[in-house]
Amino acid sequence: MSENSGLIYLDNNATTKVDKKVVEAMIPYFSNEYGNPSSIYELAHTAHNALSHSREIIKEFFGAKNELEIIFTSCGTESANAAIRGVTEANPNKRHIITTKVEHPCVLNTVKEFEEKGYRVDYLNVDENGELLVDELKNLVNDNTALVAIMAANNETGAIYPYEEAAEITKSINPDTKVFVDAVQAAGKIKLDVKNTKVDLMGISGHKFHAPKGVGAMYVKKGTIIKPYMTGGHQERALRGGTENVPYIVGMARAAELAMSALEFENKIVKELRDMLEEGILKNVKNAKLNSRTKNRVPNTTNIGFEYIEGELILLHLDKLGICASSGSACTSGSLEPSHVLRAMKTPFTSLHGSIRFSLSRFTTKEEIDYVVKNMPIVIKKLAKISPFQKELTEIFSE
Amino acid sequence: MSENSGLIYLDNNATTKVDKKVVEAMIPYFSNEYGNPSSIYELAHTAHNALSHSREIIKEFFGAKNELEIIFTSCGTESANAAIRGVTEANPNKRHIITTKVEHPCVLNTVKEFEEKGYRVDYLNVDENGELLVDELKNLVNDNTALVAIMAANNETGAIYPYEEAAEITKSINPDTKVFVDAVQAAGKIKLDVKNTKVDLMGISGHKFHAPKGVGAMYVKKGTIIKPYMTGGHQERALRGGTENVPYIVGMARAAELAMSALEFENKIVKELRDMLEEGILKNVKNAKLNSRTKNRVPNTTNIGFEYIEGELILLHLDKLGICASSGSACTSGSLEPSHVLRAMKTPFTSLHGSIRFSLSRFTTKEEIDYVVKNMPIVIKKLAKISPFQKELTEIFSE
Repeated sequence: MSENSGLIYLDNNATTKVDKKVVEAMIPYFSNEYGNPSSIYELAHTAHNALSHSREIIKEFFGAKNELEIIFTSCGTESANAAIRGVTEANPNKRHIITTKVEHPCVLNTVKEFEEKGYRVDYLNVDENGELLVDELKNLVNDNTALVAIMAANNETGAIYPYEEAAEITKSINPDTKVFVDAVQAAGKIKLDVKNTKVDLMGISGHKFHAPKGVGAMYVKKGTIIKPYMTGGHQERALRGGTENVPYIVGMARAAELAMSALEFENKIVKELRDMLEEGILKNVKNAKLNSRTKNRVPNTTNIGFEYIEGELILLHLDKLGICASSGSACTSGSLEPSHVLRAMKTPFTSLHGSIRFSLSRFTTKEEIDYVVKNMPIVIKKLAKISPFQKELTEIFSE
Repeated sequence: MSENSGLIYLDNNATTKVDKKVVEAMIPYFSNEYGNPSSIYELAHTAHNALSHSREIIKEFFGAKNELEIIFTSCGTESANAAIRGVTEANPNKRHIITTKVEHPCVLNTVKEFEEKGYRVDYLNVDENGELLVDELKNLVNDNTALVAIMAANNETGAIYPYEEAAEITKSINPDTKVFVDAVQAAGKIKLDVKNTKVDLMGISGHKFHAPKGVGAMYVKKGTIIKPYMTGGHQERALRGGTENVPYIVGMARAAELAMSALEFENKIVKELRDMLEEGILKNVKNAKLNSRTKNRVPNTTNIGFEYIEGELILLHLDKLGICASSGSACTSGSLEPSHVLRAMKTPFTSLHGSIRFSLSRFTTKEEIDYVVKNMPIVIKKLAKISPFQKELTEIFSE
């Protein structure tokens, strides 16, 4: 436990606390307004209207033109599967996909399946600062390219990728190629404005912006033909069968409203706290190296490598102090492989295994950041003593 | 509004009210125990343990042997898609599927897609009482049969199908054919005991037994190989990527516990109320005919045809009295086609368009049933006056 009353939760890119206002918005839809939105009586109309209202808000959140472009899903992973499978299966003759080396597993593992089926898949590189080499697209898009799948912001480093530019390049070479943007880590952190881009599909996940785990949405530009991913009833224009999760959809819409109104706060206050944390650690911990060096980052994320120290050990010691952070994406945890994102950035092996992601939220306080900055050198000093790299660490710390 | 304090909700096969005890069980997981179960700190362990505990309960609910056989999904429709697509894609050389004419759209529309791809699909028939002609399987299963998909109980009539026998027949002819059972309408109404059957896969949906809409589960017998439906992280043994919906999974487990302990009540009290409703209507309304005549029915469902009256009109009049019922499945509503289930039963056209499903729950009271029985003849008499079939109705009512 920390000196604060509760935990210091700095793992908001893994998942977020549901905002109490979101819980309040959902509650009536569990045991009072519980009608199936497809039924025809009054009780169902209330649920149906709540869906429509939520769709209108999520449309605004994406910056989309038309609420018919919004499909509710069960999560970001479903959005990515529905987009990638939906586009490729609607265009069976085009057997080329382009993505990046640093996507989330929901994109990488889905694309890999097509690679195994004989599709050609090209992967864009990132540089050592974590910036995407988007110009590589110019030599890759061709007549056979069904899909370009690219993140809006990276979950591990927070780097913002120029997806609008990627869409421009793609369409200038092949207007029929569809562009899917995984905006899971961007939504709620930077403004989305999909209508003013050439993006065809975009996915988000509620639990990254203080809605619950288990709800997401997908933007599908008007006129974009995709094969339905989940077949069943007529729900979501028959693109996603299954009774709609009314409470969570209402909750996600409320969370989107709150996130939209907090964007300025996020970009000023949260960013200031993140910068304080980053500068504090880099100043006070001699073996700390900033991994996410690009200036173009979501305001809440930093990724710092601690040379010659094991990341999991750092996390365990932070946990004892009541600090929650992570060594990569939660979706790849359990694996002993170092982060594919940091490897793509050619992060030196000396800090690759000791890299920690801190991701803040609008609930993070200055006291919490001060506490982490104060304790980080103590934790690292303790772990340095038991590191097998005594010689290297002694050198660094005596500099 | 009815004379009772609230609505008379007799559409529990469409969706159910979330039990307040289920809401209570979920609440802590929104804003307190909100950790990502895949993360490594203490907060995440609480979420992870809640998942494990819930998996244990849902295992009992299915009557499965091993909790590793349980995969959490986002709904019944996802369970069906994951099972059907998972089995067929894992066995690409077998291009024959057998199902029934009376399945839910999540099975029928998914199977239809394979039919369009060139698969052979055979559909089992039902008789006029709504009973499944399971013996037809004997002439249909062959070496090429990848999958038999059969409901445990029908959503429109409540008829219980002999899925255990279907699995026995299937396996006796081709032990490699996989059997999927859509148990969405059976779960919580009759005891499931999948370990003592030859069923390979089974799907359920939380919102049919007083958990929220947007969570389901799938039983996959140990050793059954299916292609993962949703690719991404390592969650659910990499068979279903995406951060787990911890609150709803906890809620579904609580709902399953409550349903298991209420099974006896369901089979006695709910059944008595259903029979009172059915007998009351059949006695007092001269043009009423029982559609779901089979004795082997889930205890909460009845389906009654009102000859020469339009079903949608009946529902609107019931709605004005505060009574919620339906004319078929909510997932097919909006369509003007009469029910595919009643058509498969060769229900005469005279009552096909005027068939109403009443589905009760453990929250239904005797007062509510009395109110419906009292009002049904009034509603039908009123509508009989405006029916274009005056001659026929006059004959029936003067009998």
